[in-house]
Amino acid sequence: MPVINSIEDLRVIARSRIPRALFDYIDRGSYDEITWTRNRDDLRALELRQRVMVDVSHLAVGTTVLGEHWDMPVGLAPTGLTGFFHRDGEIESARAARAAGVPFTLSTMSICSIEDVRAAVEGSFWFQLYLMRDRGFNAALIARAKEARCSALMLTLDLPLQALRRRDPKNGLSVPPRLTASNAWEILMRPRWLTSVLLGQRRTLGNLAAFFPERGIGELSTWVGGQFDPSITWKDVAWVRERWPGKLILKGVLDAEDARLAADAGVDAIVVSNHGGRQLDGATSTIAALPHVVNAVAGRCEVLLDGGVTSGQDVLKALALGARACLIGKAFLYGLAARGGDGVSLALQIIRKELEISMALCGVNDVRNTGPHVLVS
Amino acid sequence: MPVINSIEDLRVIARSRIPRALFDYIDRGSYDEITWTRNRDDLRALELRQRVMVDVSHLAVGTTVLGEHWDMPVGLAPTGLTGFFHRDGEIESARAARAAGVPFTLSTMSICSIEDVRAAVEGSFWFQLYLMRDRGFNAALIARAKEARCSALMLTLDLPLQALRRRDPKNGLSVPPRLTASNAWEILMRPRWLTSVLLGQRRTLGNLAAFFPERGIGELSTWVGGQFDPSITWKDVAWVRERWPGKLILKGVLDAEDARLAADAGVDAIVVSNHGGRQLDGATSTIAALPHVVNAVAGRCEVLLDGGVTSGQDVLKALALGARACLIGKAFLYGLAARGGDGVSLALQIIRKELEISMALCGVNDVRNTGPHVLVS
Amino acid sequence: MPVINSIEDLRVIARSRIPRALFDYIDRGSYDEITWTRNRDDLRALELRQRVMVDVSHLAVGTTVLGEHWDMPVGLAPTGLTGFFHRDGEIESARAARAAGVPFTLSTMSICSIEDVRAAVEGSFWFQLYLMRDRGFNAALIARAKEARCSALMLTLDLPLQALRRRDPKNGLSVPPRLTASNAWEILMRPRWLTSVLLGQRRTLGNLAAFFPERGIGELSTWVGGQFDPSITWKDVAWVRERWPGKLILKGVLDAEDARLAADAGVDAIVVSNHGGRQLDGATSTIAALPHVVNAVAGRCEVLLDGGVTSGQDVLKALALGARACLIGKAFLYGLAARGGDGVSLALQIIRKELEISMALCGVNDVRNTGPHVLVS
Amino acid sequence: MPVINSIEDLRVIARSRIPRALFDYIDRGSYDEITWTRNRDDLRALELRQRVMVDVSHLAVGTTVLGEHWDMPVGLAPTGLTGFFHRDGEIESARAARAAGVPFTLSTMSICSIEDVRAAVEGSFWFQLYLMRDRGFNAALIARAKEARCSALMLTLDLPLQALRRRDPKNGLSVPPRLTASNAWEILMRPRWLTSVLLGQRRTLGNLAAFFPERGIGELSTWVGGQFDPSITWKDVAWVRERWPGKLILKGVLDAEDARLAADAGVDAIVVSNHGGRQLDGATSTIAALPHVVNAVAGRCEVLLDGGVTSGQDVLKALALGARACLIGKAFLYGLAARGGDGVSLALQIIRKELEISMALCGVNDVRNTGPHVLVS
Repeated sequence: MPVINSIEDLRVIARSRIPRALFDYIDRGSYDEITWTRNRDDLRALELRQRVMVDVSHLAVGTTVLGEHWDMPVGLAPTGLTGFFHRDGEIESARAARAAGVPFTLSTMSICSIEDVRAAVEGSFWFQLYLMRDRGFNAALIARAKEARCSALMLTLDLPLQALRRRDPKNGLSVPPRLTASNAWEILMRPRWLTSVLLGQRRTLGNLAAFFPERGIGELSTWVGGQFDPSITWKDVAWVRERWPGKLILKGVLDAEDARLAADAGVDAIVVSNHGGRQLDGATSTIAALPHVVNAVAGRCEVLLDGGVTSGQDVLKALALGARACLIGKAFLYGLAARGGDGVSLALQIIRKELEISMALCGVNDVRNTGPHVLVS
Repeated sequence: MPVINSIEDLRVIARSRIPRALFDYIDRGSYDEITWTRNRDDLRALELRQRVMVDVSHLAVGTTVLGEHWDMPVGLAPTGLTGFFHRDGEIESARAARAAGVPFTLSTMSICSIEDVRAAVEGSFWFQLYLMRDRGFNAALIARAKEARCSALMLTLDLPLQALRRRDPKNGLSVPPRLTASNAWEILMRPRWLTSVLLGQRRTLGNLAAFFPERGIGELSTWVGGQFDPSITWKDVAWVRERWPGKLILKGVLDAEDARLAADAGVDAIVVSNHGGRQLDGATSTIAALPHVVNAVAGRCEVLLDGGVTSGQDVLKALALGARACLIGKAFLYGLAARGGDGVSLALQIIRKELEISMALCGVNDVRNTGPHVLVS
Repeated sequence: MPVINSIEDLRVIARSRIPRALFDYIDRGSYDEITWTRNRDDLRALELRQRVMVDVSHLAVGTTVLGEHWDMPVGLAPTGLTGFFHRDGEIESARAARAAGVPFTLSTMSICSIEDVRAAVEGSFWFQLYLMRDRGFNAALIARAKEARCSALMLTLDLPLQALRRRDPKNGLSVPPRLTASNAWEILMRPRWLTSVLLGQRRTLGNLAAFFPERGIGELSTWVGGQFDPSITWKDVAWVRERWPGKLILKGVLDAEDARLAADAGVDAIVVSNHGGRQLDGATSTIAALPHVVNAVAGRCEVLLDGGVTSGQDVLKALALGARACLIGKAFLYGLAARGGDGVSLALQIIRKELEISMALCGVNDVRNTGPHVLVS
Repeated sequence: MPVINSIEDLRVIARSRIPRALFDYIDRGSYDEITWTRNRDDLRALELRQRVMVDVSHLAVGTTVLGEHWDMPVGLAPTGLTGFFHRDGEIESARAARAAGVPFTLSTMSICSIEDVRAAVEGSFWFQLYLMRDRGFNAALIARAKEARCSALMLTLDLPLQALRRRDPKNGLSVPPRLTASNAWEILMRPRWLTSVLLGQRRTLGNLAAFFPERGIGELSTWVGGQFDPSITWKDVAWVRERWPGKLILKGVLDAEDARLAADAGVDAIVVSNHGGRQLDGATSTIAALPHVVNAVAGRCEVLLDGGVTSGQDVLKALALGARACLIGKAFLYGLAARGGDGVSLALQIIRKELEISMALCGVNDVRNTGPHVLVS
């Protein structure tokens, strides 16, 4: 057994476990991957302030987000097709999140349905919503999330239409995955994935089944282009608000002006996100945008961040710049693809340990006490 | 059939379709390619402002340039020897441009003559002029362009003498291409190009035939050195103006002071250009020069830009900094060399789609409403 | 015999002489090695001021640190496990340091004990202390260092808990090194190390033997986590002060505020250090931190620097920014692993020669006369 | 015959023509080659201002330096051991320089003596002087240069002692080159060099023969360390002045303060130089130092520049920042090693042509009219 002690280690194993089309779907950004690269590089460029002679024998990384206690300031971002990376991927991930004391967010585009996850996992989870042209479908989804006692609804804003991740059409990515002449050999070399996921997965896009009874939807981006609503505006937030009385989070805010509008709309939290460098190529990195967003909302709602977070050091930097917590996508999916739920747990443990050590070496013993003083200005 | 979804994909195919000498002529810059590199890098470094919750269900990319409607803000730049990259290359490109609703610019140094293109293509096209030592030739060319009802004349300023593209002499680039011992094998491996272009092309430098009756001109740069006029000054713009009552465009302006002089000369538009990084090595990138030029002309003429534009994101950035439209050279030539007219169409489609998606993700639904607010300052 | 004229040359030889697990322990930084890289890059980026026509026929590189004369402003940093890189590594290094007229610092985590070194080496040496949870052990160590007439005690502050050097667990680094199936071949190819160190070394972690009678401690980082005290604060400096009346040095100060507190604590010197980029990944480089630290202590104590120093030019730059001297770790360990004590001597000679030449070419003939004027601002 | 149209082309050929020890002596910098790299990178980073519509039909690149007419603003820098790169290397170079209408500078450390060059070359040349511990030798050299009617004496200041070019000892560089077991094969593969230079060259270090009658001096750096005078100061300039009534040039000034002192000393010109990145590693690039030096001397003497100049664009940039002319070292030595005197001529032609074209594209038709307006600020 190889030693695994970084997210990169999980990534390398994931690459050998699942077909190339799925791995690239996790791993790559849109177009020239300029923003994808910025997310990572801008996080790396920040400087942490090493401090000494602070008693760090007790390190507290628990925090409160939207009134919920999190055991560490890192939740699982909503990710599409998660059940294709491992059998029952959403359930495995949700259980790992629960074991780690952090929230799991189920995507509209998940393989396991809201009800599947509800039935299999104890405690609450979050639900992520894309607004479709057919609002009846959205109303039904919101009702199902309520029924499943989801503790927060996360509305994604930055995908009114889908940007191109160039590898996807080249890899023939489809939903469900198809065995073709060009990928047959590769898939036969991954018998575990073949039998447990391709042949063994119970369903396709579980949340959609009622409205889209056909088993598959073919090429993902084509389907998204036909179903997702490109006309959504702030009025639609009000429409959701009426139907969802619980915690409401907007994901995909990267601009200070939009952050202000989000706060005006009375949402509980926003996620500073550029969809992991998978939508607007050329957009600012999330960490560069964060301070402007934090300043704009002025405490009127909580601010989370995702995009390029693959280490505890990244988490600490985001918190220092005003994020209440981070969400990870790629980082936990590598774990899921590599080792199932255990891999997700491992990803969270790696990041937690890195966060604890980095905090300690910055002289911070409670993660709630971070701030600009943790960074070299 | 491989999936083609970027200009780079077309480039890779082009490389396998035409002889190295011609591919490098398209692909490379002058000397150490410092400016060639800057064109691309400076475009990439700009940051687009991601905005959300704007209704982008209707995206308008049509615009008006010099009073003409363009279906998208991207025209085809004049490029020399275009007919060598594909049989009837100029006609194929002009037809593809027309199908896409954008202008095609025929170069003085084209293989198909003004009359060839006029006869084969519906609608108008633009004509590009180099000033030669023999002004009678220029007067005749202007008359022919008028006769062909070209809707604009584009005078190129930045080639009073030709800079060295180092690969050209090494590759034995000549007009017409010659089959030699050193390239014979390579050409035999490209039988389609051999039969359709080298053996099948009807002529060489069609616009020159009346004045230069010999079929070929040998090494291009030597010939250019002998024929192009290095003494041209602003007085020559007046000379052209007298003979050409229609729209007049100056291409090759990179400096604010020159832009002011161009506006003083009463031209209708300028193209901010460094000849695609193929002339002055060490010159500023066009995107870096653009804001200074836009500021200098202060609306007295329209401003276009070329140089390094290979994506819709690049186009959006140029428009945000004040360009009315972009011209593409390399980007459509890769398409032409790869797939003929269909390849040119594909190049334009790729860029259009990228532009639409990038606009949408910046919350811009009409390309005429771009501006500095689309960029992160 | 290959010519050796740079620290890099010694590094290459070292790699071929000792097992990979030990080489990587010397060679690599923690996590993503961001800080490790910054240490080197920030030193390289500084510009020395070339001056001419200064009589440099006599170059003086001797200096005074803590009242001791040093023949050159470069001492040996404390390094753990030194005896595993070469038989009697601490003794060999101490003798080489003495021959070069510079101090050697014995680590708490050394293989040879204080008494071993005391018995084998003439003159004084320094002793480095980690504070353990068991203060009785520390009190005993301080007493032993006093007994051995160590001329200074260096307390390390930046390892309240140990950061992860990712290669260590992958390489199966343990104390003492173990012959395993996966490293057997590699070790058999290094018969000199096998016989003289693995089989021939007299002991393991000599300073610990009295308190930790078992021969080995297994995985280093696990042991450190159990024994090192993460609760140390400035009060512990006072505790040490009471027991150690001699020169006291604090190592691991990187922040101006901590430097001020160190000076307030009345210590004699501080070492600006980030543990060679092996603890907080993301921390500032030591050379970037240096001027702020120098300014903060305002002459109240002496300031040394380590981290990334691998050339005489690096030393000159650090002195120009206010360091009284540098400590080297990696640079001498490469020498030790490559050639034993002779390799340590060679490392010191290389750096000394580089320092002399660089000084001369900056018009400085006495190392005590460096300052900001030696750098281009 | 390969097409040669850049200095890099000459470099590649040179590498195949002479032994590695000699090629590296030309090609490499001192220590980590930080300054060597800066020289080139800082030149490349400057931006030339593209201008159009200036009559550039007549391009004048002639200039006046120290009252002498130069056909182009590029002279040959003094370079040691030149006769080892090609038989009669100094004579070949001097003739090529004369043919190009630019000065050649004979090094103290030349293979052909002053008298050899005087006898073989028409017109005047410059002589470069190192000050030795034995001033009698210098006095004699000055007298010989006077006797040979050298038109200027260039005193090198930045080599009071020799920095390490790490490859030299590894390659066994010696004077004269020795055939050894380790280089025998390589030299047998270069029969032209073996017969014409190693066996055919008439002498070793011709200028030294009277004072150092032994044929060779062994390892160059050792010999330099023993003979060159590290105690030289501004008083020695006066000593030279007394003996040399003609034009006096100081080479190796990189600092504004030294430039002021040089002007105070009444010299006719200085060469802004860091010995081609071969002495102080960490020094500023020459092009970065140039404006400060030009400002410091305020016209009291002429300012030349060398270091990293390998193209006409580089020359234009240096002139724009105030240099009266450039000297090239590496650039002509590659030519000499590749093709003898013809190669030197070719190097000068390449740079001249690049300069002319770059000037033209900047709208400059007389090289004497360059200035800061040629660069983008």
